[in-house]
Amino acid sequence: MSAKPAIRVAVTGAAGNIGYSLLWRIASGNCFGADQPVILQLLEIPPGMDRLNGVCMELTDSAFPLVHGIVATSDANVAFDGVNQAFLVGSRPRGPGMDRSDLVAANGPIFVGQGKALNDNAADDVRVIVVGNPCNTNALIANANAPDIPDDRFTAMTRLDHNRAMGQLAAKAGRPVADVEGVIVWGNHSPTMYPDVSKATVQGKSVVDTFDADWLGSEFHKTVSTRGKAIINARGASSAASAANAALDHMRDWWTGTNGKPVSMALPSKGWYGIPEGLMFSVPTICEADGSLTVVEDWELSDHAKAKIAASADELLKERAAVAELL
Amino acid sequence: MSAKPAIRVAVTGAAGNIGYSLLWRIASGNCFGADQPVILQLLEIPPGMDRLNGVCMELTDSAFPLVHGIVATSDANVAFDGVNQAFLVGSRPRGPGMDRSDLVAANGPIFVGQGKALNDNAADDVRVIVVGNPCNTNALIANANAPDIPDDRFTAMTRLDHNRAMGQLAAKAGRPVADVEGVIVWGNHSPTMYPDVSKATVQGKSVVDTFDADWLGSEFHKTVSTRGKAIINARGASSAASAANAALDHMRDWWTGTNGKPVSMALPSKGWYGIPEGLMFSVPTICEADGSLTVVEDWELSDHAKAKIAASADELLKERAAVAELL
Repeated sequence: MSAKPAIRVAVTGAAGNIGYSLLWRIASGNCFGADQPVILQLLEIPPGMDRLNGVCMELTDSAFPLVHGIVATSDANVAFDGVNQAFLVGSRPRGPGMDRSDLVAANGPIFVGQGKALNDNAADDVRVIVVGNPCNTNALIANANAPDIPDDRFTAMTRLDHNRAMGQLAAKAGRPVADVEGVIVWGNHSPTMYPDVSKATVQGKSVVDTFDADWLGSEFHKTVSTRGKAIINARGASSAASAANAALDHMRDWWTGTNGKPVSMALPSKGWYGIPEGLMFSVPTICEADGSLTVVEDWELSDHAKAKIAASADELLKERAAVAELL
Repeated sequence: MSAKPAIRVAVTGAAGNIGYSLLWRIASGNCFGADQPVILQLLEIPPGMDRLNGVCMELTDSAFPLVHGIVATSDANVAFDGVNQAFLVGSRPRGPGMDRSDLVAANGPIFVGQGKALNDNAADDVRVIVVGNPCNTNALIANANAPDIPDDRFTAMTRLDHNRAMGQLAAKAGRPVADVEGVIVWGNHSPTMYPDVSKATVQGKSVVDTFDADWLGSEFHKTVSTRGKAIINARGASSAASAANAALDHMRDWWTGTNGKPVSMALPSKGWYGIPEGLMFSVPTICEADGSLTVVEDWELSDHAKAKIAASADELLKERAAVAELL
């Protein structure tokens, strides 16, 4: 048995499809390392508790040496008790006739409650990723309702967009994705996000110099930003495994550090690049070995990029205004 | 990038629920190691190809550095071309009104075809796990139809039963499963299987000496052997993630070796313990560092255990007789 003390890992919406992909990879050591025991603290809404019980049975049946405990609850105060790593996956999905502002409003109360429960119960070193959409504004709300937790512990996930952009460049080049570097996704996790390939390379060669500008300007961007719908059309189900994978990549990078390389993470803006302060905005972020996050502040931006980033910031300002009374 | 050459890993039924749990864990290095690139060769029946295409899109979107290629096909000859590791997950599920013998008969032709395709196309070092049920007899059929592949490369999965038994003992003792050792499941992956705790320990203490004999003789065995149904009742879906996890455990142990410890694997019997020769039967198996499998031949068996093992062998003899013309 490992000598390391177990860390407490919370997953919300734990009986959902993303949770079902995420939990086995956390439990196997694929996020926090093969020598790091975990206690899984799983949150569901009351109607999901039977299903969550089934998930817990299957986790028990997987005989994971690293799993030192499993808690299943519908009480956020229990799920977040002493938690070190929190994956906020559950959210209210978009129903028929709801537009983005309805979605923002419907999710607000959930993330008020979870922010407060984190504030009251989490460990001092807690780190939070919000996956449940609209994830940037949900993270903003949780952050605002957890005044005792430093702002820089709250992040939202744009890693799926980042990975989708990497995958498209690799496929276009006919190379493994390990040959692709330097992609950054800016902004909101929404169609306004901006996948920036200005510094991207494939096998060390500039993507901008190598690839057709028309393809990069149109099809590439369109494929990345509408990928979720394309997968639903093909699979008949949403992209759960790749979303879970992106959440793992995000939290693993934060846990281990990125060795000086920037990745895409949405963080509370400190005004970098003119992004309004406090917005949860995806920027090039270096995960340091000590667990801190350093934003790259000297990334060169074209006028086109600046306009795209401003548009995504505008969208997030509107989302923030819509939930102002929750902040 | 890794210096190791990629291995070819085939998964059949790749767009199914077990496949959806399995593929991300293989792709992340959780089976063959974090430095072992893989080429994924995915087989589906023609009606599943749209869904498989969606799965491939999501694998691309997961930007796995170890994935050096993805092949999606409905042709077993393509899926098994040069394959080193084969997960035969897909099978015809039990339909309304089908009993076990109907199920055996319905699956026979699938595994005749896959055995032949493996025989004609697989790499010299191919290793096969059959997960699709009835997995023991399906493996027997595939083996019989691949005369050029050594018999000991064909195995069937009883690791889920094994892991379920481990999990129940750990839960009963209130200990992490890492404290449990020495469980073996004998026989067919069916209700006749025999979970043998005669040498099992929790924290080094004998399970037989510590635990209530009534519990071991009744509730423990019943929970392990009817677990699949209990999970369907709770989740509203079958135990895909824990089945995928067991397949990974089986193949990982075979890949890395078990360091002298026996695990449960169904192999073609050489007559050990009076088990009729050729039956695909789960026995205590040590995975050697060189990739060979050594059956523990001096396991002490009580009269009760011998009777249970004989009953499971009888069932497998009947299954074999039902598919005799396919062998």
